[in-house]
Amino acid sequence: MPKMKAAVFVEPGRIVLDEKPVPDVGPLDALVRITTTTICGTDVHILKGEYPVARGLTVGHEPVGVIEKLGSAVQGYREGQRVIAGAICPSGHSHASLCGFHSQDGAGTAHGWKAIGGWKFGNTIDGCQAEFVLVPDAMANLAPVPDGLSDEEVLMCPDIMSTGFSGAERAGIRIGDTVAVFAQGPIGLCATAGAKLCGATLVIGVDTVRERLEASRRMGADRVIDFKAGDPVEQIMSLTDGRGVDVAIEALGTQATFEACLRVLRPGGTLSSLGVYSTDLHIPLGPFAAGLGDHTIVTSLCPGGKERMRRLMNVVASHRVDLRPMVTHRFKLDEIEAAYELFSHQRDGVLKVAVTP
Amino acid sequence: MPKMKAAVFVEPGRIVLDEKPVPDVGPLDALVRITTTTICGTDVHILKGEYPVARGLTVGHEPVGVIEKLGSAVQGYREGQRVIAGAICPSGHSHASLCGFHSQDGAGTAHGWKAIGGWKFGNTIDGCQAEFVLVPDAMANLAPVPDGLSDEEVLMCPDIMSTGFSGAERAGIRIGDTVAVFAQGPIGLCATAGAKLCGATLVIGVDTVRERLEASRRMGADRVIDFKAGDPVEQIMSLTDGRGVDVAIEALGTQATFEACLRVLRPGGTLSSLGVYSTDLHIPLGPFAAGLGDHTIVTSLCPGGKERMRRLMNVVASHRVDLRPMVTHRFKLDEIEAAYELFSHQRDGVLKVAVTP
Amino acid sequence: MPKMKAAVFVEPGRIVLDEKPVPDVGPLDALVRITTTTICGTDVHILKGEYPVARGLTVGHEPVGVIEKLGSAVQGYREGQRVIAGAICPSGHSHASLCGFHSQDGAGTAHGWKAIGGWKFGNTIDGCQAEFVLVPDAMANLAPVPDGLSDEEVLMCPDIMSTGFSGAERAGIRIGDTVAVFAQGPIGLCATAGAKLCGATLVIGVDTVRERLEASRRMGADRVIDFKAGDPVEQIMSLTDGRGVDVAIEALGTQATFEACLRVLRPGGTLSSLGVYSTDLHIPLGPFAAGLGDHTIVTSLCPGGKERMRRLMNVVASHRVDLRPMVTHRFKLDEIEAAYELFSHQRDGVLKVAVTP
Amino acid sequence: MPKMKAAVFVEPGRIVLDEKPVPDVGPLDALVRITTTTICGTDVHILKGEYPVARGLTVGHEPVGVIEKLGSAVQGYREGQRVIAGAICPSGHSHASLCGFHSQDGAGTAHGWKAIGGWKFGNTIDGCQAEFVLVPDAMANLAPVPDGLSDEEVLMCPDIMSTGFSGAERAGIRIGDTVAVFAQGPIGLCATAGAKLCGATLVIGVDTVRERLEASRRMGADRVIDFKAGDPVEQIMSLTDGRGVDVAIEALGTQATFEACLRVLRPGGTLSSLGVYSTDLHIPLGPFAAGLGDHTIVTSLCPGGKERMRRLMNVVASHRVDLRPMVTHRFKLDEIEAAYELFSHQRDGVLKVAVTP
Repeated sequence: MPKMKAAVFVEPGRIVLDEKPVPDVGPLDALVRITTTTICGTDVHILKGEYPVARGLTVGHEPVGVIEKLGSAVQGYREGQRVIAGAICPSGHSHASLCGFHSQDGAGTAHGWKAIGGWKFGNTIDGCQAEFVLVPDAMANLAPVPDGLSDEEVLMCPDIMSTGFSGAERAGIRIGDTVAVFAQGPIGLCATAGAKLCGATLVIGVDTVRERLEASRRMGADRVIDFKAGDPVEQIMSLTDGRGVDVAIEALGTQATFEACLRVLRPGGTLSSLGVYSTDLHIPLGPFAAGLGDHTIVTSLCPGGKERMRRLMNVVASHRVDLRPMVTHRFKLDEIEAAYELFSHQRDGVLKVAVTP
Repeated sequence: MPKMKAAVFVEPGRIVLDEKPVPDVGPLDALVRITTTTICGTDVHILKGEYPVARGLTVGHEPVGVIEKLGSAVQGYREGQRVIAGAICPSGHSHASLCGFHSQDGAGTAHGWKAIGGWKFGNTIDGCQAEFVLVPDAMANLAPVPDGLSDEEVLMCPDIMSTGFSGAERAGIRIGDTVAVFAQGPIGLCATAGAKLCGATLVIGVDTVRERLEASRRMGADRVIDFKAGDPVEQIMSLTDGRGVDVAIEALGTQATFEACLRVLRPGGTLSSLGVYSTDLHIPLGPFAAGLGDHTIVTSLCPGGKERMRRLMNVVASHRVDLRPMVTHRFKLDEIEAAYELFSHQRDGVLKVAVTP
Repeated sequence: MPKMKAAVFVEPGRIVLDEKPVPDVGPLDALVRITTTTICGTDVHILKGEYPVARGLTVGHEPVGVIEKLGSAVQGYREGQRVIAGAICPSGHSHASLCGFHSQDGAGTAHGWKAIGGWKFGNTIDGCQAEFVLVPDAMANLAPVPDGLSDEEVLMCPDIMSTGFSGAERAGIRIGDTVAVFAQGPIGLCATAGAKLCGATLVIGVDTVRERLEASRRMGADRVIDFKAGDPVEQIMSLTDGRGVDVAIEALGTQATFEACLRVLRPGGTLSSLGVYSTDLHIPLGPFAAGLGDHTIVTSLCPGGKERMRRLMNVVASHRVDLRPMVTHRFKLDEIEAAYELFSHQRDGVLKVAVTP
Repeated sequence: MPKMKAAVFVEPGRIVLDEKPVPDVGPLDALVRITTTTICGTDVHILKGEYPVARGLTVGHEPVGVIEKLGSAVQGYREGQRVIAGAICPSGHSHASLCGFHSQDGAGTAHGWKAIGGWKFGNTIDGCQAEFVLVPDAMANLAPVPDGLSDEEVLMCPDIMSTGFSGAERAGIRIGDTVAVFAQGPIGLCATAGAKLCGATLVIGVDTVRERLEASRRMGADRVIDFKAGDPVEQIMSLTDGRGVDVAIEALGTQATFEACLRVLRPGGTLSSLGVYSTDLHIPLGPFAAGLGDHTIVTSLCPGGKERMRRLMNVVASHRVDLRPMVTHRFKLDEIEAAYELFSHQRDGVLKVAVTP
């Protein structure tokens, strides 16, 4: 049985490079040889034990690679093809998928809905910080990479870009909208780009790290706000002449940013939440207009599936957004423990790392 | 200067019948002689001092009447016409109105948006528990009553029916949806009727008062749940085979019902909130799927304006819903203090009262 | 190799009962033993040679049956289970499916989109007027029948009900809308029911056959119009006080009905087209307001997939609509040629026939 | 009675500069002193007698100016303020307006809907190719020009930009869409810009005039197609690998372009029509998939109202689009007959002219 290297969750505080068997390929699966992958903030939650996964699981959910082997029932692809797969792998045939909520795919449940059920890689099945990854429901998930796009150009598509853009899309941003994006990490930066791409004409990026504020401008923010230079709510209300924003995007996962979003929202506006929270949330009565403000709050999990990936790679291919500067550091898979060390401590201005087996 | 009788807020705990001048009619206004009106739960909040209004203000926001006098710039109506006006009076010309968020009309603000700004009667201007009421922006608000409909048949249109239905409409209910409605007071009953009217095929009404559960069935609930007969969340999860509901409507304005809504919602589902809350709200992490459940929370203030009233009166005229049984008690305007006494204490199985000058 | 009886297209004018091998079951398929099926107007087009299919193909696309055998990769079902499958069988994994346009599934094409590509039974693969049918992509298509529902109660779900309802759903009907449905055959009757179920408060059914006008009333029409008793456009404009309808549904597939829909539509209204046309269409300049009327025209092919079937069976189970009276005649599969004879000539007031092997 | 100069329709073939009284200001009106205006293709239709207006009517519907006098009931503005008003002047209070279909405003009709009823300037009331124009329903229509924007920068907002953008908006363009825009005159160029602004990642501009194809690239087209260099349908199908486009925008008003839109549309795609047609239209059966392609056809009339104008001026102020190059020629109001001569013959590469009293 052939072996491969894989980054494995051992226990809280320890993700290590280990050897595992190359997985068997079921009829609906595809085996993909990873050429580039990356580490996500969620992986850091796993590392710290804040998000529980099974011991021995291979982590990672952002694969770029080459088809090594196709399952017996998989049609429409060929071995050797360059592909990506989304971090979220909808089955296509669950009730949730057939409704368009691919991320909440509960293909194995009686009724077909399960919160976060579409997230499988590095969560409920082995992930892609490894030499090979098994992609389930391959026909719904494998997206061929257009000629001319490099691994690093499409590396953000599986998660960061899909998640960040969905913050803008799910908010129904319209031409002429004013949008504030709280936190300008990788997800927030993509939300900023997505807001601009949807037609927002005043995009306000909020953070405090100088490099991130600069990146925010490059990704499309018209104005950036340093929340340490004054109350960001006051700054935004002043920027909008007391009107508030049409859409506020939460991209951090904290009470402070969630609440700030509500406080800058105009009546009838939409709070689009992308963050992964680790505590209960609190809705203050006043900004919520006691429930009478015609507000909308939407939460989104990264949309996946091959059609989503196709669209995002179109964005890259058309040069609408250049995400390459987000890859600030590069590691070999053999060095992945060092990559975790750097990324989890946000050292050296890191935004995203590229990891190559 | 002619005088009229009006129910006036004096101080917390006291709404009394008083005499006031019949108002002057500005160019965009219409003076309407009230023939029937009613008391709303919000008026009880005002009575108790929980919702602040100016002392001396005439309360009430659900007018049925006859046009007494038209402003000089008002066209398209004639004196003597039977009309209603919504509880919410959009200007039609504010930025919020022109966006379709008529309830958040800030016609007088620089930017045109103000939370709850469309609610004027008995809030920011004199209301309609009086012999006459002045309707602002009459051309946007006066809706002629179709021949053959009685005052009591259209009495719920200005607020209760508009609000309750909007709970179903804003949730985007589709044919085949499962919907739970928490609390079966007047608003909740109308939300129940609205959910069925939108195509829901399993509507679950939750309350504990026997008369309200019976009314819930009459208004369209397929199943009713007595929340004192067991945890309503467990009962609903059991009714739906563990799937949860597509839409949960909150129609009371408490933490307990808001939270129960979240707990019965399937991933990707919508919580539609109608209640007027009096405390901050709390979102528990688990049912919120840590922000990754693709949930939507929408809040709605009663939609107003003559087009909305026209549509709601169509519903009544077509016998899709019979709201007359909701009028359980009748009072003369002279007896309005007794009406408040009964209504505010929910005595004698009261749902709604009809008040006639 | 076991044999089965099947209704086979031989040549224009001839569909005959023949013997064919029971099909082999591929990994993603399910073999379903048919217990009840029916004949659709489209089958009559096939019979007449107006819609071309391969000679030797088994016709029929409305299956109710029992799972006989599951493909090796199919999970979540058991043999012996009662199921239906939609007339349209989305793969779930095509680009079109992943976008929610399941009916336009081009699973086999390079780009994944093909007009009408989701319609496979009795079109591109063997259909279900037979003892057995092979259901492709079984996990996306097999919908278990709830206990207590008879074959005839769910017989309309695979096509007629799904198509008719989609006419109302795709038009975005809202509470209080006025809707005209042109032609009250099986599809039009279901569109009428669907319009009411979506909240329309004035539903106008148009036909000329007395039994169909009566059925129209039973299915939810508030008013019926006999188009031979006067120009239906004039009758509808008069019924709506010159306003026109919010939504007009075309359910026949002719220039006359398509054009009448346009002529009764208010500015900003929606023409929802369900008919299968056999000639080019013509849009008259005046009713189209020279292209400036903010009109919308939508066409829809029957939505399929197990989630759609689940929802439609919910409608049946909740007694929102009773479609049983639409089954006016019953035949054995052995008598299917006689069934075609009756149905294709619309003899004896036939609406739909039930065919049982 | 003070007099002013105005361009007046005399008879087919003759629009002349004449003297007329400065209009009286009604309670809801505002008198605006025109500082810049322009000529629209529709004005040329009027000139030629193809679109009938009353003899003696002042033409023109794209005003930039300064408030000269406010009606007695108008609040929220001050004399001397720089403003624009949309070509379409919704009342705000009609049924159509209250539904959000501001362009189909039939404020004066019994039921409140009238095709194209919102277009008043230079159609049903005196227009703005004059020294002064009377703006009806001023509070719904006057939009203050942000400081720092010149007349020419906002000159396209009232019609061209609003119309062109609406072609993209009404089509529901999403991130990653492929869009073809047929004809690259002023409206088509703005549709091209709008498609890109909504997130389309492959925008294809179709025309044959070299300057217009160049302008198309500047406005956001990724590819341009010269329809004289080969069948544009074939070129587009080739560019999209046989897939077709998600959205096709018609911006000319001819059978040829309308039909080409249908022919390049993928199943489930949307044809967004902006053109003003002068003949009946013809829908070919094949590209329409016999009515089974899940296609949508939407037509749009220029959206108006002050909120729309505010949003469009935001687009200009944020430098998302630079429309100044569209003003290719400048005339004094005294020279307007020469301006018509040039513009109506499309001489000298003219796109739009600026006319200043």
